[in-house]
Amino acid sequence: MADRSGSAEDRLIARYFRPLARHPGTFEFKDDAAAITPPAGHDLVLKTDGLIEGVHFFPDDPAASVARKALRVNLSDLAAKGATPLGFLLAIALPKGFSEHWLADFARGLGEDADVYRCPLLGGDTDATPGPISISISAFGTLPTGTMVRRAGAKPGDHVFVTGTIGDAALGLQVRRNAAMASQWKLDDVMRDHLVSRYRLPQPRNALAETLRAHASAAMDVSDGLAADLAKLCGVSGVSAEIDIARVPLSPATAHALKTDATLIEPILTGGEDYEILCAVAPSSVAVFEAAAAKAGVPVTDIGRIVTGDSPPGFLDRAGRPLAFARPGYSHF
Amino acid sequence: MADRSGSAEDRLIARYFRPLARHPGTFEFKDDAAAITPPAGHDLVLKTDGLIEGVHFFPDDPAASVARKALRVNLSDLAAKGATPLGFLLAIALPKGFSEHWLADFARGLGEDADVYRCPLLGGDTDATPGPISISISAFGTLPTGTMVRRAGAKPGDHVFVTGTIGDAALGLQVRRNAAMASQWKLDDVMRDHLVSRYRLPQPRNALAETLRAHASAAMDVSDGLAADLAKLCGVSGVSAEIDIARVPLSPATAHALKTDATLIEPILTGGEDYEILCAVAPSSVAVFEAAAAKAGVPVTDIGRIVTGDSPPGFLDRAGRPLAFARPGYSHF
Repeated sequence: MADRSGSAEDRLIARYFRPLARHPGTFEFKDDAAAITPPAGHDLVLKTDGLIEGVHFFPDDPAASVARKALRVNLSDLAAKGATPLGFLLAIALPKGFSEHWLADFARGLGEDADVYRCPLLGGDTDATPGPISISISAFGTLPTGTMVRRAGAKPGDHVFVTGTIGDAALGLQVRRNAAMASQWKLDDVMRDHLVSRYRLPQPRNALAETLRAHASAAMDVSDGLAADLAKLCGVSGVSAEIDIARVPLSPATAHALKTDATLIEPILTGGEDYEILCAVAPSSVAVFEAAAAKAGVPVTDIGRIVTGDSPPGFLDRAGRPLAFARPGYSHF
Repeated sequence: MADRSGSAEDRLIARYFRPLARHPGTFEFKDDAAAITPPAGHDLVLKTDGLIEGVHFFPDDPAASVARKALRVNLSDLAAKGATPLGFLLAIALPKGFSEHWLADFARGLGEDADVYRCPLLGGDTDATPGPISISISAFGTLPTGTMVRRAGAKPGDHVFVTGTIGDAALGLQVRRNAAMASQWKLDDVMRDHLVSRYRLPQPRNALAETLRAHASAAMDVSDGLAADLAKLCGVSGVSAEIDIARVPLSPATAHALKTDATLIEPILTGGEDYEILCAVAPSSVAVFEAAAAKAGVPVTDIGRIVTGDSPPGFLDRAGRPLAFARPGYSHF
């Protein structure tokens, strides 16, 4: 967050981002870089993920929720890896003629979540772009050395758990794109707002980080869809899985929509942006994992088992038949 | 650098970026995040800086040099702060229909510089964008706890040093924009190529990091122009400076251009993208600083003095008159 004395850029940084310089190692963004002292005996967990206007958010989404989503998608990865947030860097590119009101709202939302998740802004970069608003966040977490929860590590017999509910954000995105979907799915206003808010503002499961470190054999967050992400976890673990579709936890809104249109099961399982945690837990650890999750206030649901083999995970209907997906998960290209 | 099994995105990452996963903490980019163990007794220095096509580089610039520049502008900050490179994260947004040849060349250049500067790629994010190619790098360095070289710290009486030569990149950018400038400035091909290469490929002064930690009272890299950056360093240090323009080190090409057009002194001193180091050194440390820089193979030039006061630094001509700048430095907004 270089200070460009006297320039318009400097003024923007001073006005909107300097109030977020709450970590002493930021030097109030009046230096070229931040300096932090990592806790002894700990590893750093590093992650970068970005949002682009028109790709990851709508131009008329509230700027504060765009900022919070940009941070939260990264916090979700830290949570899945078992890490405690340490701080983040922000790179933001703004079109010429952007609204300062938008930026003020963005910085306010960012600062609120930085406080809530105890993940301070450590520095950044602002640029002008001829393209859409682009936000890139690099987030850092810490955990005792060597304890990062890996994707690789799931073993045959492990129970497969997910947190919260699956599919809300995928349906919320469809409603956001086409408001008529809400009436087509016979949703009341509360249900519709629930789905859209789940798309707009992920609820990262940082409260579960310690429990995952203690009890999960493998974990990741669900960003590209439960089916695709489970396939990745199984792939690097050298295993497969069998999931009971009926046990996949759904919110009342998503369950209601699915009842009106059974084909929605595909976007529910593949649509992504859930930002829930998917993990594998050894049978001997299941009871203590469930108790620890309950204590942390995070709902977890056992949805199936890790099995041997290298075939893609099977999502089984009530008759035990595997579902075939037309489009297994989100890809940008 | 999430692995999206079976997707086109996964294939891109596997083909072009996985060969760069040389740090064991990257888990071959087959996990959600990287994990590194910071050296005990050290601080982390964090910096993010980005490049956008059409803003920071030309669409027909070689992709390998775009990649190297993206990394080097960050390495330059680490150098100025006295830090040793540890690694970096890459976020890259590519327009639909981008050339894989471009990406292959980009990854090759990035991998080469990651090796040269011992700064491995630790993870990343690839996205599709409706806008121009956008590259954001977050770079991390280490140094003994509490020893980051600050911008604040320059004291009246300190000598002001710069490394290398100033103004080449600013003139190189003008030539790159309008090839006729080379003949207008009566440059031969070698001079012209020197200026363009200085714009295209910064030479960060990482070899000087330890010397700066040991002997500089304040330092920063010159990215927004010598005049603006010195003003920032003086501003946060609560001092001013007097610089002898005649002592500012120029390459033969820049000196030649300046001889044909004396007004070029303004872009030379304000154009930016030098990625040289500007620092203040106490009189008692000057001799040992100069000797250490020579040993590190980095040319340094004493260009003036830090003085008391809060006026902007003066750039004095041979008659001792301060130069007035129309546009003191680069700002995106």
